[in-house]
Amino acid sequence: MHTVIIGGGGFVGSRLAKEWVGQASFKDDPSSRLTLIDMGFSDELIEDSRFELVVGDFSEERVIRPVLTQRPDVIFHLAAIVSGEAEKNFELGMKVNLHGSLQLLEICRELAHKPRLIFASSCGVFGGDVTQVVEDTTAPKPRSSYGTQKAIVELLVNDYSRRGFVDGRTLRLPTITVRPGRPNAATSSFLSGIIREPLNGVATTYPVTEDAAFWLLSPRRLVQNLLHASVLEEKLLGDDRVITLPGITASVGQLLESLRRVAGPEVADRAVYEPDEFLQRIVLTWPPHFLPDRALALGFVRDNSTEEIIRNYIEEENINTTNYQ
Amino acid sequence: MHTVIIGGGGFVGSRLAKEWVGQASFKDDPSSRLTLIDMGFSDELIEDSRFELVVGDFSEERVIRPVLTQRPDVIFHLAAIVSGEAEKNFELGMKVNLHGSLQLLEICRELAHKPRLIFASSCGVFGGDVTQVVEDTTAPKPRSSYGTQKAIVELLVNDYSRRGFVDGRTLRLPTITVRPGRPNAATSSFLSGIIREPLNGVATTYPVTEDAAFWLLSPRRLVQNLLHASVLEEKLLGDDRVITLPGITASVGQLLESLRRVAGPEVADRAVYEPDEFLQRIVLTWPPHFLPDRALALGFVRDNSTEEIIRNYIEEENINTTNYQ
Repeated sequence: MHTVIIGGGGFVGSRLAKEWVGQASFKDDPSSRLTLIDMGFSDELIEDSRFELVVGDFSEERVIRPVLTQRPDVIFHLAAIVSGEAEKNFELGMKVNLHGSLQLLEICRELAHKPRLIFASSCGVFGGDVTQVVEDTTAPKPRSSYGTQKAIVELLVNDYSRRGFVDGRTLRLPTITVRPGRPNAATSSFLSGIIREPLNGVATTYPVTEDAAFWLLSPRRLVQNLLHASVLEEKLLGDDRVITLPGITASVGQLLESLRRVAGPEVADRAVYEPDEFLQRIVLTWPPHFLPDRALALGFVRDNSTEEIIRNYIEEENINTTNYQ
Repeated sequence: MHTVIIGGGGFVGSRLAKEWVGQASFKDDPSSRLTLIDMGFSDELIEDSRFELVVGDFSEERVIRPVLTQRPDVIFHLAAIVSGEAEKNFELGMKVNLHGSLQLLEICRELAHKPRLIFASSCGVFGGDVTQVVEDTTAPKPRSSYGTQKAIVELLVNDYSRRGFVDGRTLRLPTITVRPGRPNAATSSFLSGIIREPLNGVATTYPVTEDAAFWLLSPRRLVQNLLHASVLEEKLLGDDRVITLPGITASVGQLLESLRRVAGPEVADRAVYEPDEFLQRIVLTWPPHFLPDRALALGFVRDNSTEEIIRNYIEEENINTTNYQ
């Protein structure tokens, strides 16, 4: 089996890639291949011969076409211009998030076989009334260009699946926290930063008040859900391939309280409020309350608590917490 | 004021054009202009000097750009590859319904001013569970490529409006009946045919059983609603520019019963059931029940009854009914 991860050099993509090659189904099949496409890769991936790396922008036809014409069986499409950047650079977001994804679908349509496509959408397709409880039947009303572009590709994946061009599965991602590494241009970046930076001994800020709540999922559960999406039987999905992933609702204050419990007040106090109007205008339109009934019925998973999310992050990143407790 | 109607040669577009030039605001302003774009025009429009006619496919840049660079104040976008054709010819539907509309928005984005854009979407963006009552918050789940393309352009019009590139207003059209003239490739064409053909003394068929129900609006009320959309104050709309138009729910049997009451049993009996699997697969996924609260609050209108729809059609088309009653 040949698998492709578009965005395979990113944080979620690399983590998925490492899980993927560890699976028995990969190791036991001598014809297994895994191709990662991204603008760049870590040394760890470069030095690992199990990965075939393609460096380039997937939205450029000369990059993506040669990979797809090898007829991969499974394609994970995780690449995107993130929300803050797509809002500031409209043309770039349209080129990559909309036209790049549409081109991917169009090339799949030309193939003789029907690849399985797992597309990472976002709960950022919702926006506006944050008091609403989002159900599986709730209309996406994005309040950002990123959310708009994701909502459009969701519709395309559904239609291309209905017509038999691909076997699509769209996952709407909650805000993923805690992301390791450095802050990025995602408008939700601070929701990782307020955990990660204090644990690293670094002062940081959050742009919204403590009562602002969000719909959260850890990287660990996200990777589990991506793997699950790739093996779900097509007939369980029917015509609607969009799955709003489960998550947990937590406010900035609750996250900091959990950090306080896990690592002590000195650590948690390194995150302070510093209002940012640009970020507020986007992230405060994201509804934090969901009823992800369909996803739960299909076997997708979530974290048990914000404390569990933080403890898992500390364990995965080998953060020395001996000084904390 | 300069107004453009894309699809101005079609049945709805021509009717709107004639109403438009009859308005006091048009007649009293010596700078008034009305440009119609379509693949062809009736002699009536060709011979009327109030209309500037552009013959061509609006999805071709060489056709649309020269019109838009004249900086029209108001643009009605009514042109589309209809549902049946977009389902059978996927590439043509994508080219016109998606890429043509996106190109229109992109050219508007380049303009120095912000044109008002009234976009005709369709209740065909909904599909699947026909027992559901569609509310303003219900997610579009199209079961056709036409519905998918319309739902995508709705999202684009919203985002281009939010960003200030256009002042968009999207109307989701119910099935429009009674359309005069000849049957077309719309999958809903029979809902006009079962009234129009019998009144013309012509036998016709319907592809679904009599109990199949639909969400209907007459051409008269549609044109009223298009005019209303063009003068609504922008601040009443906010970020969400999508308006599901009011209509009435009626089954094929109810339509034929109204025809029977208006024109007698001999006329109504000219329409007979002849199942068509292709049409059923699309039209039977359209939910017939809506709660168009937002549209009604904004002053959009609907017909009072199917009988009124039929009587208006007879009056407008000068059909001789003396033999009927």
